[in-house]
Order: sequence, then structure tokens, then C-alpha cells
Amino acid sequence: MDFSKIKPLDQKYAETAQKRWDSLIKPQGSLGRLEELICRLAAIQQTPLPDISRKRMVIFAGDHGVVKEGVSAYPQDVTAQMVRNFLRGTAAICILSKQLKMELQVVDVGIHCVIEDRGLVSMRIREGTRNFIDEPAMSPEELDQAIGVGLRIAEHSRDWGIQILAGGDMGIGNTTSASAIYSCLLEIDPDEITGHGAGLDDAGRHHKVEVIRTGLKRWKISSKEPFEILRHFGGYEIAALAGLYLGGAIQSIPVVVDGFICSAAAALAMRISPHCKDYLFFSHTSAEKGYEVFAKEFGVKPILDLGMRLGEGTGAAIAMHILDSGVQLFQKMPTFEQAEVTKRA
Amino acid sequence: MDFSKIKPLDQKYAETAQKRWDSLIKPQGSLGRLEELICRLAAIQQTPLPDISRKRMVIFAGDHGVVKEGVSAYPQDVTAQMVRNFLRGTAAICILSKQLKMELQVVDVGIHCVIEDRGLVSMRIREGTRNFIDEPAMSPEELDQAIGVGLRIAEHSRDWGIQILAGGDMGIGNTTSASAIYSCLLEIDPDEITGHGAGLDDAGRHHKVEVIRTGLKRWKISSKEPFEILRHFGGYEIAALAGLYLGGAIQSIPVVVDGFICSAAAALAMRISPHCKDYLFFSHTSAEKGYEVFAKEFGVKPILDLGMRLGEGTGAAIAMHILDSGVQLFQKMPTFEQAEVTKRA
Repeated sequence: MDFSKIKPLDQKYAETAQKRWDSLIKPQGSLGRLEELICRLAAIQQTPLPDISRKRMVIFAGDHGVVKEGVSAYPQDVTAQMVRNFLRGTAAICILSKQLKMELQVVDVGIHCVIEDRGLVSMRIREGTRNFIDEPAMSPEELDQAIGVGLRIAEHSRDWGIQILAGGDMGIGNTTSASAIYSCLLEIDPDEITGHGAGLDDAGRHHKVEVIRTGLKRWKISSKEPFEILRHFGGYEIAALAGLYLGGAIQSIPVVVDGFICSAAAALAMRISPHCKDYLFFSHTSAEKGYEVFAKEFGVKPILDLGMRLGEGTGAAIAMHILDSGVQLFQKMPTFEQAEVTKRA
Repeated sequence: MDFSKIKPLDQKYAETAQKRWDSLIKPQGSLGRLEELICRLAAIQQTPLPDISRKRMVIFAGDHGVVKEGVSAYPQDVTAQMVRNFLRGTAAICILSKQLKMELQVVDVGIHCVIEDRGLVSMRIREGTRNFIDEPAMSPEELDQAIGVGLRIAEHSRDWGIQILAGGDMGIGNTTSASAIYSCLLEIDPDEITGHGAGLDDAGRHHKVEVIRTGLKRWKISSKEPFEILRHFGGYEIAALAGLYLGGAIQSIPVVVDGFICSAAAALAMRISPHCKDYLFFSHTSAEKGYEVFAKEFGVKPILDLGMRLGEGTGAAIAMHILDSGVQLFQKMPTFEQAEVTKRA
């Protein structure tokens, strides 16, 4: 996989966009971050007038071997149960996607059981990852395959005319996987970056921290090896998300990043290719303990802070609407001249 | 005007709403502030299932006598010019209102010139307030009339089946008026709460601070007299907004508060009737210097922080979408039982 294709943005488009903002009927700079976000969209899409009408949300679902260690408040079956709710259109992300008129794709990258449903995109790698306490979560081939899922979807999205992507995750046990990734990548003790997940009590969280510590000690992966970190501790859905972020950058498609799990994938993608960050929009500050450690380390300033920690891409969907508002304003507001409004002295 | 009718919320509805949140297919509490906001909506609307399908944004436009002192980067004509853009549907707030399917009403409470347009609601009090350096901005009768405009619109909105209101402002010079109100109400020097408005340079801001200081010294109004503060330094649009907030509370209609100007009106409304706060949703942290002083003093935690300072109700419109997302999720997500998802152990 050749990630050297990912180039920094051409700032010329961002500058042209800022000039347009400055000509519109409002005090200069008065739309604050909206202006900056839309300028970046212009640079990613390499156009003076960005458009995100065609939106696609991709949820990757996979199971985690490490749940055998009792790290989650919910049984593994819930992954498949929630996927069925995504397919029925009843889950939170379905409601938000409909509100936004955003296409929703659900991809099986490794659920523990086979779900027969024509609405589900099957790119199954295995019936869940291996338990990272005993063996690396995936083999080198599986890692390539999982990252490849995200890359391929980004490529297809480009062909399909999709103008903005977002990723979501589903996988019981994936906060454990994400915390292990952050610990290793940021060289910090798991206690600093491990939260209560979907609902552990304090004793449960303590046990989860111990399990991660054991895994880290067992494999001793260097913080400089993002692929190895992903292979040992990742989930298939996290690897596919990393592929989606890298793929978005390769295809010049902006990608909105959800919360704690998705940001672990984004952190790996940014370590694999630092320019990848230019193509990502971090949507919200997750309430999961440790998100702020990540945000500080990577210089990430999410759009929203609503104390959410649901996953499924829900935070990304809510932030997507804000980008949408920005684009609408940018496209439709008249200039001072067009509107016959006196410019400031 | 009898504001003793404004009662604290009946928490029973909020508790019932929280129970419903806890039964839906997501980890408990994982929608963070969205859950809290919707519980408050339930309590305001006194229903187990709040609904904000019918939204109304009301922009109050008025001019300010104090602009004669050279406190604004834009000439007074811009108030009328922008109102014409609201009526044409081209201004920022029109685009956002359309995106949200929110009704938009523009109300003339005292523009310096008469605008003949059937789309404009005319509740004109005078051709702009008086210059507060020379005389109180309004007479006691004008103050009653201006607050009455907001109260009346809230009452009409109730009759009309409107489920949520938002207010916006337009008036060249109104950051000067708002800063004077905050200074007086919070007993702080104008320098701490006076920003660059729509585009003053540093010298311009310094002059604006001096003008406000002169006004404050001239009238020496006690911080305990919100009506007198409003009468001496307010604009008609600010008084109408205060009336809208108080009226929303009287009519049990939630009201979304925009940025720096609207929050000055909200601050007065909350001093007039402390329970009014329960009915208000502060939408965003304005980038105008001093907003955070206000927010801290009144214990206000806005939904968004996007560095915006455009006015027109634009921040309120963007936050309204977040409330909308919350309501959609609350209404449409199935319970664990309905969805056949295993609850946590």
C-alpha cells in the first residue's frame, strides 16, 4: 500500500474561498470556524465552490477476541443485534442519516456470526479478531485486507460521486481495542486513556485497564510502528476505518471522524501519513475518558462538544449538518455588491 | 406586566423523559447533553414526548441613536439594507431557516426609515432609539411597548401552534447598546465587555468604550434595575427580544437564544424573572469580547462554540438543528425490548 500519494492541500483553493467569504454580506470573519472549515473543504475538493450534497456514512462492524476477558458491559451478541437495527433503519445513526439525507452503508468486516441480509455489505475477514492477550489480533494478511476494505470504499465513493464521507463503528469490545492503541501510540499507561466504555462500573474499568496492560507488556510494540500496533490490538472495523481515512485523502474526499473509536483509527492513519490530517474533520469531543489526551497530542479541535459517547458515527452525523450549513451559506449568500449593501468604511 | 406567572419547570416531565432515554437502544447517558436538552424540552412543553416540528425564528430590527457617536464600522443605512435582504430571502439567516424548515418573521420595531414591504411585520415604535449620551434611549411608554412586542409574538406563536421559538437581531450600533447593558448589569467596566462589533479597529473600540463609560456615568443606573437599564441603554430590538424570552416562558414555549446581543436581552429577562432561564436554550459562545464574562456570571453553557459573531439569529439556527436531532432520536429510537437487543448485565 502506497500512502506517499497523500499530498498536503493546495492552499490556493482555500485562499480563493476566503476571498469569497470576505465578499459576502456579513462582517468579515463573523462566521468563525464555519469559514475555516469551508475553506478546507474547498482545498480538499480542489474547487472554488465546495459541495457536499452527496454524503455517505459507512459503518464498519466487527467483533473482538478480547471480549473473552470480560472487558465489556454488554455480551458479544449485541454487535450483531445492533447491526440488525442498522439494517432495519431504527438505530440512532439511521435516524440522523435520514434527517441529513445521507446515504448509509453498513459493512460487515468481521462480526462473530453471519448475518443474511441483502442490505449488509459483506467484506468479512474472520468471525472477529483474536484475543490480543494470547495472540496478535490479526495476521499481516488480515490487516492488509481490513485496511483495504476502507481504501476500496473510498475509491468506490469517488467513482460514485460521493462528496463527503463519514465513518462509524460497531463492535462490542472496541473501546478496549482503541484504548490499547492509544496507550501504545502515545506511550502512556492505559489507566490514563481507558474509560467506562458502554457502561462498566469502576471495578470493571480497572479490570479492563489490567487486561490492556497485560496485552501491551506481552507484545511490546514500538509507538513508531502504527501498522504493528493496529495488527496486534486493533479490530477489523478500526483497521477499515483507518483505511477509509487514508483512502479519503488519496481520493481527495473529505472524511468526518466520529468519537473515541474512530479517532483511534484516525490517529493511526495520521501516524502512517501525517498529511492525512488535512482531509479529516474531527466531529466531537467524546465523553470517553482519554479523548482529550488524544486531541491534545494530535492538535485536534473537534467541531462539537456535547458529551456524547454513543459511537455508530452519531457525532459525525451531527457535525456533518454544521458543515452542510456552512456550505449552504457559502454557496448562497450574495456579495455586498449583489445585495446592494454598503461595505464598512 | 406581570412576570410572576413564570414558574419553575415541573421536573416530573424531565424525569419521565430521562426514563425513556434510559430504555432506548444505546448505552445509558451516551447521548450526553442531547439527553439533558430534550428532558428540559419535555418539561417546558409539559409532555412526555416533546416535538419541535413547528419552529419560528423572529428577527427584530431597530436603529440606535448612539450611532451618532461613531461607534459602528457600518453606516446606519445598513440596518434597512439588511432587512431588505431578509425579506428577499438572501441573508444568512434565510438560508439557514430554509435548511431547517423554520418559519422566519422579520419585525420592524424601530428602523430609522419606513420600509414598504408586505413581508415585514411593522410594530414600529419610533425611527430608532434616542442617543443615550444625551437622553434615555427610550421613554417608559416606549419601553413597555417594545417589551410588549415580544410578549405579543410569543402569545400569537402559542395560538399558532409554534413549538419552539428563536430570536435574532438586526441594528447597526447594537453591540454598543448590549455592552452598556452588560456593564451596568454586571457592574463591570465597559472595557471588559466591549468588543470590535461588526468590524471596528482598536482605536474604534477604544472610542466605543469611552462612549459607553460616558453614558453609564451620566445615568448611574443601579444593577438591580433591569427595566431602567433597558430603558436607558437598550434598543427597541433588545427590549422586544427580552419580551420574547419572558413571553416564551409565560406561554411554555422553549426559546433559543442567539449570541452577544440576544444574550444581553436574555440577561435582562433572567434578572426580571430568574425562572425565565429554564425556558431558554443558549445556542453558542459568541466570539464578541465579553460573551464569556456574561456566560460565567449567569451560569450559561452554550450548545456550540464556533467562534461566530454574525447575529441575525444564525447561531440559534445552527443550534436548533442539534435540538432537532435530539428530538428525532428521542421520538424514533426503539427501546431495548422493541429492538430485541440484550440489555447490559
